[in-house]
Amino acid sequence: MDNQQLLDLIGKMTLEEKVAQLVQLAAPFYEGAGDEGQITGPMQAMGITDSMIANSGSILGYAGAEGAIAVQDAHMKKNPHGIPLLFMADIVHGFKTIFPVPLAIGCSWDTDLAQKSAEIAAREAAVSGIHVTFAPMVDLVRDPRWGRVMESTGEDPYLNSLFARAFVRGLQGEDLMEEIERVAACVKHFAAYGASEAGRDYNTVDLSERQLREYYLPAYKAALDEGCEMVMTSFNTIDGIPASGNEKLMRNLLRDEWNFDGVLISDWGAVKELIPHGVAEDEREAAYKAIRAGVDIEMMTACYVHELPELVRGGSVDETLVDESVLRILQLKQKLGLFDNPHRGTNPQREAEVVFSREHREAAYELATRSTVLLKNDGILPLQAEAKVALIGPFAQSGDILGPWSWSGSTEDAVKLDFALIERLGDTNVSVAVGCGIEEGTEEQLRLAVETAAQADIVVLALGEASEMSGEAGCRTDIRLPQIQLELIARIAELDKPTVAVLFNGRPLDLHGVYDKVGAVVEAWYPGSEGGAAVADILVGAVNPSARLTMSFPHSVGQVPVYYNHFNTGRPQGAADAQVRYVSQYLDAPNEPLLPFGYGLSYTAFAYDGLKLSSGQMTEKSPLAISVNVTNTGERAGVETVQLYVRDVSGEVVRPVCELKGFVRLELAPGERGTAVFTLNEEQLRYHHADLSFKSDPGRFEVFVGRNSQDTLNDSFILN
Amino acid sequence: MDNQQLLDLIGKMTLEEKVAQLVQLAAPFYEGAGDEGQITGPMQAMGITDSMIANSGSILGYAGAEGAIAVQDAHMKKNPHGIPLLFMADIVHGFKTIFPVPLAIGCSWDTDLAQKSAEIAAREAAVSGIHVTFAPMVDLVRDPRWGRVMESTGEDPYLNSLFARAFVRGLQGEDLMEEIERVAACVKHFAAYGASEAGRDYNTVDLSERQLREYYLPAYKAALDEGCEMVMTSFNTIDGIPASGNEKLMRNLLRDEWNFDGVLISDWGAVKELIPHGVAEDEREAAYKAIRAGVDIEMMTACYVHELPELVRGGSVDETLVDESVLRILQLKQKLGLFDNPHRGTNPQREAEVVFSREHREAAYELATRSTVLLKNDGILPLQAEAKVALIGPFAQSGDILGPWSWSGSTEDAVKLDFALIERLGDTNVSVAVGCGIEEGTEEQLRLAVETAAQADIVVLALGEASEMSGEAGCRTDIRLPQIQLELIARIAELDKPTVAVLFNGRPLDLHGVYDKVGAVVEAWYPGSEGGAAVADILVGAVNPSARLTMSFPHSVGQVPVYYNHFNTGRPQGAADAQVRYVSQYLDAPNEPLLPFGYGLSYTAFAYDGLKLSSGQMTEKSPLAISVNVTNTGERAGVETVQLYVRDVSGEVVRPVCELKGFVRLELAPGERGTAVFTLNEEQLRYHHADLSFKSDPGRFEVFVGRNSQDTLNDSFILN
Repeated sequence: MDNQQLLDLIGKMTLEEKVAQLVQLAAPFYEGAGDEGQITGPMQAMGITDSMIANSGSILGYAGAEGAIAVQDAHMKKNPHGIPLLFMADIVHGFKTIFPVPLAIGCSWDTDLAQKSAEIAAREAAVSGIHVTFAPMVDLVRDPRWGRVMESTGEDPYLNSLFARAFVRGLQGEDLMEEIERVAACVKHFAAYGASEAGRDYNTVDLSERQLREYYLPAYKAALDEGCEMVMTSFNTIDGIPASGNEKLMRNLLRDEWNFDGVLISDWGAVKELIPHGVAEDEREAAYKAIRAGVDIEMMTACYVHELPELVRGGSVDETLVDESVLRILQLKQKLGLFDNPHRGTNPQREAEVVFSREHREAAYELATRSTVLLKNDGILPLQAEAKVALIGPFAQSGDILGPWSWSGSTEDAVKLDFALIERLGDTNVSVAVGCGIEEGTEEQLRLAVETAAQADIVVLALGEASEMSGEAGCRTDIRLPQIQLELIARIAELDKPTVAVLFNGRPLDLHGVYDKVGAVVEAWYPGSEGGAAVADILVGAVNPSARLTMSFPHSVGQVPVYYNHFNTGRPQGAADAQVRYVSQYLDAPNEPLLPFGYGLSYTAFAYDGLKLSSGQMTEKSPLAISVNVTNTGERAGVETVQLYVRDVSGEVVRPVCELKGFVRLELAPGERGTAVFTLNEEQLRYHHADLSFKSDPGRFEVFVGRNSQDTLNDSFILN
Repeated sequence: MDNQQLLDLIGKMTLEEKVAQLVQLAAPFYEGAGDEGQITGPMQAMGITDSMIANSGSILGYAGAEGAIAVQDAHMKKNPHGIPLLFMADIVHGFKTIFPVPLAIGCSWDTDLAQKSAEIAAREAAVSGIHVTFAPMVDLVRDPRWGRVMESTGEDPYLNSLFARAFVRGLQGEDLMEEIERVAACVKHFAAYGASEAGRDYNTVDLSERQLREYYLPAYKAALDEGCEMVMTSFNTIDGIPASGNEKLMRNLLRDEWNFDGVLISDWGAVKELIPHGVAEDEREAAYKAIRAGVDIEMMTACYVHELPELVRGGSVDETLVDESVLRILQLKQKLGLFDNPHRGTNPQREAEVVFSREHREAAYELATRSTVLLKNDGILPLQAEAKVALIGPFAQSGDILGPWSWSGSTEDAVKLDFALIERLGDTNVSVAVGCGIEEGTEEQLRLAVETAAQADIVVLALGEASEMSGEAGCRTDIRLPQIQLELIARIAELDKPTVAVLFNGRPLDLHGVYDKVGAVVEAWYPGSEGGAAVADILVGAVNPSARLTMSFPHSVGQVPVYYNHFNTGRPQGAADAQVRYVSQYLDAPNEPLLPFGYGLSYTAFAYDGLKLSSGQMTEKSPLAISVNVTNTGERAGVETVQLYVRDVSGEVVRPVCELKGFVRLELAPGERGTAVFTLNEEQLRYHHADLSFKSDPGRFEVFVGRNSQDTLNDSFILN
């Protein structure tokens, strides 16, 4: 249907029918989609009628090709205008083939693989009946207490923006109408959800508009620039007003300034949550504020269907607001080709072929190897071929390595570490003991673990957080490993054997009791369906690790937020005239994190030299070429991610001590010397000035090129 | 001199002479003020000439009547226009007679005593040669990692505003010209220094203008409304620009919107710190930005004297800016009467009479008794008259109980706890052991302590932080007591004797290992010169404690910031429809602090009943009377601080879950019943709306009256 046909269709709809397009309900509300038929109790409790469901626009969280076809068919028979349902779901890092969590994907610094992971997730989802995924999540994150940091690619606006674009490309492809095994993307959570106060989920966000625009907004904007079809509101307040009722954020910025004309959906229940937030007295005021802010779809609450008809008839809400929202939803259905083929890519045969296919799992394996970060290695890794290995810990045999937001994935299908390690080293060389549970354990378990370890040449500890300890509402005030696991490490450390810790977790941890106790640390995150295989190949050296942290590891929770692109302050540590006491520092901890942004080790070593700028001057018309030589000085081939950072020494507004502006992945054979070349132009030096205008300042800039945000070669230039 | 005479005087001054009025240098730069004469090395290093000193406007940190007279006399001989120096210093909570630190004074909820403490501090300072004190510090504080929380009265804008006014009244009196034993006040640190990121001193501040205006600015404004003569800039950035170069903050808001025409001084070195902050290339740009922002006095750096003359001659800075600054400084000198009597209240004889006088020390004692908070009491306190007491811990015999910012105070003159306790209980009933040092201790010390405790009926542990562990640049990522002291507690706890912990410290602590280990906890803060006497009288029950916390005690550092007037969020804990998981909470800690704002115990008990509102409706013209009955149900006379909180249930902008609107101190005999009566009017319900306009909203308000911010009787009313 063309736009006029959609408008004509809207013209034929009653007000109630139109408003019903704006509600989104979970699968059990729909006939045939629940395990035991349509649920009626919750419908009654929510005041949802059969007619509202028949006229509703979208369904949440249903997958399965045959069922989806049946649900769509049943719905279209009931819908008086034959309007198909949109099927939406949270496909965040894979559908059935689970990729590493996004925070791990970020550590790959590999946007091609990220894009491929999204493409595969889209394919599996699309053939299973899904049209839209609530991804990518691109919230900038600085506080590891917050459980949802695992959904983000990290603390850097530039890198997050690249990944945002990659995920959108992978999910949506070039043309949603043609490519029926893609899905529409929905960037979230707009905006600044990652800045939840005290790292507590759903909590207040307060920041200046400058911070918002400079650091938090770029990744959302990048996703939209890439053509992302939808936006989801965040749960938090922005400038004292919850996002789902925030006209300034949604209407003025998203719609008017950014010209976003796609579908804006609330997060789960967020429209009605305007009431507990304290900006709406009741459902009516909540509906009023949300529709005025520009929220098209209300997810899982019923303020719109209950109240919008009367608000329109009473004259408080202009019917054109409703019509515009309906139009945007119908336009998305049209873009997806649903009016022509309401089943789109849904296909039981393709479902059987592609979902969790070997090819998909290989892609998951590859990305997991690229996302696993070697944090420490005192020469223990890779494991010697003939070594007797004791594999110990709650993650030794655990399938809980998919991470949060992997609802279609199966922990039983996940490749577990013990299986993979035995496969590689042989079962006579690997002995396994659980050591303890995630948060509890017995003296007997500990004793057995020590006994097992005592008989081995080397100990591999598989430790971490259960997946429900991060993710949505998975916030912790203590970001250390659980006490029992620290106890396990301490007991094993007493044996004084070479010991490796492999960590499965969803956030940067306080590594006291880990980093200082073992000779090697491997950050596996939640590596996904092929996680055990990927980690095992890193442990035995079949793969040389190359990943780099995209979120700082703090020394302790008392240091957060700690992030690389901070300001210098007026009294920086280490300045020439710095006093002993009166500088910006703690009495009991360093300012720097334990492990900085960009950090990660390899089994080989890389030496840097010859940092060269094509000129000491830059103008708007003459970008700089920046190059550096990197030599593989070790004995294995490896990949080095060469990073370029820039600092604007003096601005109208304070600028960060450094900001990532580019990176180059160099694959180098032993002894090979390569050159990383970057182009830096004036546009990359722009920032928001005092009046929020976006431009650069002439003056001096420092350039840092190196292996991470703290270990660099330095030079400078003048922007004229 | 009248204003015209001041203008005439300025007309006679050269540009260099005028600019020199704007520099403030520390005492050692002045002949006769240093221990060994004028310091020349630093002068040369800073590029300070004799002529600049001769023409300088103010001197920093000198006290002592005879010396001050000599320095002033010498200066006036050298100054070509006979302009007297302003003597400024940090008199924060007493001069020689040290009062409790401001965070403790806040806990008194007694603005009269606070005012009296300021009056006494002013008197001692004034007779010793000081004209201006850099106080009050009124920064709102929410992060106990920050060392300077001890300088603030806490986390509440209303209470901070009351104390700001009280301190200004006490320091300045009614008329600075007449009352020569008062000093001019300088409110600091403008603005929002207390929001330093990650609780690290001098660090970045980022918040919305709404937060700034609603919570952080009121106390500064209150001080100015009370007539505070001066303002000091803060070290931090505000909206990306350091305060000392922030035109929007200083020129637009402070000068133009608030009409402040007093002297604005930079904090120590803060003008030159515009360079490391990264908004000035060099001293010239720093001077340019600071003078344009409206900073009159540059403290301890020389950008103005080096650069302003050329900036004016080159036309970049209008000379009227310099003239205005000089005029404001001369006007302050005139207000203080310095042109008529350059020695003002400076008086060696009065100095001998009043400084650290019995009367002053009695006031310090009284305020210390009112500031000491009883945090826990399982019936152990007060001490039985005949009990054998073991006094143990690093603060048992320590004079380090004055706290930071007490440079004229003497720890040797402080009344120590062992002395005061023996005085009250007799030396046969008190045995003393140090137990350990503040951060270190020996096994032998611990052993002796346990031995001493074993022979007593009751143990009093005197624990805490050394004063340099808080205050400026005294920031900690770990806010527990030092490990050795926790070990001491654990060892003593094994004896299973009644044990009291008395804490001397400058911040809310994580009390794990304290609160759970002992039967009673007394928060003494840094109680000042008479601290030991005050604490001892509370311990023995000569004084019934009545203080209430004005800053929340978090469960742990992983919970900060935690403060009482937070927002509800869209998914509050404990709501009727709250899920198990998906509410705003941590997995491993409660949302609420261990001890809330307003909390504090007494040796008696108070029961509340009969909360009554004069009406269910309020209008702009008809305030409400709110009353509650309070009965002393215990067996001792006591003071109850009855607290009134209000919540705006639904606003245009989210409003806090409750906000303090008033309090009444009731002194009740055993069995006595009193009534606390509050008046609440529409003006108290105003807040900053979406467009920052300040007004109230009609609608429902909840009323909470009780003993602290969490334990209240509740009612509600409608504002029409």
